[in-house]
Amino acid sequence: MSTLAPVQTCLQAIADKNDPFTFRSGESLSEAHLAYETLGELNEQKSNAILLFHAFSGSHHAAGFCPENPYSPYWTEECHFGWWERFIGPGKAIDTDQFFVICANYIGGCYGSTGPSTTNPDTGSPYGRLFPHICVNDIVRSQIRLLDAMGIEKLHAVVGPSTGGLACINFATMYPERTSRVIPIATGMRTTVLNRIMLLEQILAIENDPHFAAGDYYGRESLPHSGLTLARMMSHKTFVHLDAIERRARKDVVKDEDRFSWYQPNNHVESYMLHQGKKFTDRFDANTYLRICEMWSTFDPVKQGQADDVTSLFARSREAGHRYLVFSIDEDYCFYPEEQTALVNGLKSAEVDHMFITVHSEKGHDSFLLEPELYMPHMQFVLS
Amino acid sequence: MSTLAPVQTCLQAIADKNDPFTFRSGESLSEAHLAYETLGELNEQKSNAILLFHAFSGSHHAAGFCPENPYSPYWTEECHFGWWERFIGPGKAIDTDQFFVICANYIGGCYGSTGPSTTNPDTGSPYGRLFPHICVNDIVRSQIRLLDAMGIEKLHAVVGPSTGGLACINFATMYPERTSRVIPIATGMRTTVLNRIMLLEQILAIENDPHFAAGDYYGRESLPHSGLTLARMMSHKTFVHLDAIERRARKDVVKDEDRFSWYQPNNHVESYMLHQGKKFTDRFDANTYLRICEMWSTFDPVKQGQADDVTSLFARSREAGHRYLVFSIDEDYCFYPEEQTALVNGLKSAEVDHMFITVHSEKGHDSFLLEPELYMPHMQFVLS
Repeated sequence: MSTLAPVQTCLQAIADKNDPFTFRSGESLSEAHLAYETLGELNEQKSNAILLFHAFSGSHHAAGFCPENPYSPYWTEECHFGWWERFIGPGKAIDTDQFFVICANYIGGCYGSTGPSTTNPDTGSPYGRLFPHICVNDIVRSQIRLLDAMGIEKLHAVVGPSTGGLACINFATMYPERTSRVIPIATGMRTTVLNRIMLLEQILAIENDPHFAAGDYYGRESLPHSGLTLARMMSHKTFVHLDAIERRARKDVVKDEDRFSWYQPNNHVESYMLHQGKKFTDRFDANTYLRICEMWSTFDPVKQGQADDVTSLFARSREAGHRYLVFSIDEDYCFYPEEQTALVNGLKSAEVDHMFITVHSEKGHDSFLLEPELYMPHMQFVLS
Repeated sequence: MSTLAPVQTCLQAIADKNDPFTFRSGESLSEAHLAYETLGELNEQKSNAILLFHAFSGSHHAAGFCPENPYSPYWTEECHFGWWERFIGPGKAIDTDQFFVICANYIGGCYGSTGPSTTNPDTGSPYGRLFPHICVNDIVRSQIRLLDAMGIEKLHAVVGPSTGGLACINFATMYPERTSRVIPIATGMRTTVLNRIMLLEQILAIENDPHFAAGDYYGRESLPHSGLTLARMMSHKTFVHLDAIERRARKDVVKDEDRFSWYQPNNHVESYMLHQGKKFTDRFDANTYLRICEMWSTFDPVKQGQADDVTSLFARSREAGHRYLVFSIDEDYCFYPEEQTALVNGLKSAEVDHMFITVHSEKGHDSFLLEPELYMPHMQFVLS
């Protein structure tokens, strides 16, 4: 068994003046890059590649140690270890002795891919509010360009946990010839009413921040950190099981600095949530946060896939001979189990080869990051 | 059967220089009033009174028509009809041919009781940030003073839905000799982790508003309406069943004015939620909102009741011979059914006479306002 060497962030141009990248919104960029990393080795036939889509606030850095990222000012210590470290490596759920893993930062991201904080060549200043609105298919198409640049025609598998699963489903149904296996984990088939409401709340938390300046806050003394803190707190409660929040919070200490203009937090849960929200502002950009909220809120694989209905959407997967492995987490408050059931019902209606596994966890949505043994056997089985 | 006449808001002084009202926080007011209304007639023995505690954003105006309230600038058209109109009146769940109903606006409220928007006699300006922090027991004690002023020694019943139920429980366990029956509806025995997190989010939504000014915003051109809108949206999603939100939202129209500095809402659910949040700012004061959030978040009937544990707390109810009627709503996302189960377990442990009823509704928490027939038979039975 080999071990993973320290990993580096690579950059790939995916647009130029002769071939701009056009978003579904109609906006386009004549210069754009994706930051990505690869793990394991691509075989000669280029047939062992797995494309992994990261979750909402994740990055292209999925496994190994990467202390530096020259393309991002948001690369704090929290980013140094790969977010799927426990799942990727020799002998792990995604075995790097067998597979070549590619993970790219979303277009619009803040970890090196062209995004709102990137300098706009037309103005010499960061894009800010002018950066295009994004949808899931923009992320997918930008990464198809990365695969093209690498000469990879067909993936062994496309994998996506959480919001990465939205991209995974869009990839499989719009470019079915480009993969064999599809592994969406703790994700959704469509945005629910609750998703839309909670994403709007997060968007407004940032919009209401007096320092947001419609997104043109770069280089200013005050940044929209209080809004981003609140937005992160809102989402954090859906990632971590509430019992786990209570357990973790007990170890936390109420801090003196947690005083607002009127309110003073008075219990460990409040202090813990504030800490989670505040530390996030060092490693994430509010403009990227907004774009990912919107991307998620507007996700509709049927409409975006220009299909008549769910059955005809997934008929493409049946025709391409896809095999799906769908994971649910029983007490997931971010993507509820009903959402994976809806996905699986779509696969059934189109008679797509699939396996559907529910893991039982006390950790909530976070399980997909923390409990590799609940996923590994089935992942290895389906990937083999 | 008589019919209800138009109702008027009454005022009762509950403090003066010789007898100030001291909050649990240690702060005190030497001038304070409660706005209240009464329905039905008090009998000669003063034995037919029912004290009703309103919910979070409710008022003392529980039933009938009250187009004017000279004591509040927040009295919009939405306030004119009583919030428990369907439950109170001749022959209804609380029969005004038999009972004398008293409902008072919370101390700290914005509908006529002394609150943050009231003029501080020491400064000649509204209290604003200087208005005391409140807890559930402050609300209860202030209303005990109202009962004293009316000469009512013992209530026939104390009734409280939603956050009003917190006061109902505190009343029954701290002043057990002052009531016979206790009817908490869709309420909680203690604040859960989720309550505390969601209340903190609502507090921060207001604190982060650039126009909040630590609570001293009265008379200014810009008020903290965007923060209050967001806070109300957050709570609204817990009041109304998500399916009902979706149904209601379909009838709504996306409005042009729903454009923020960067984001533009793009679906009916978003538009509906924004409408709910925005219209609330006309009829509510952000400072009152904050104080009720804190009151709820810090609720602990055992600690505030200076009892050793739940069993000894409710032993007071057993000794006083109370009869409880506890209602749960099966799909309540505001006060989850588990919270009423915890309350009932406390009653059981102390061997208190009680009935526990779960109503099944598609309306979520809102059921307690909308579906009188689900509650009326048992309420009439227990009140008789």
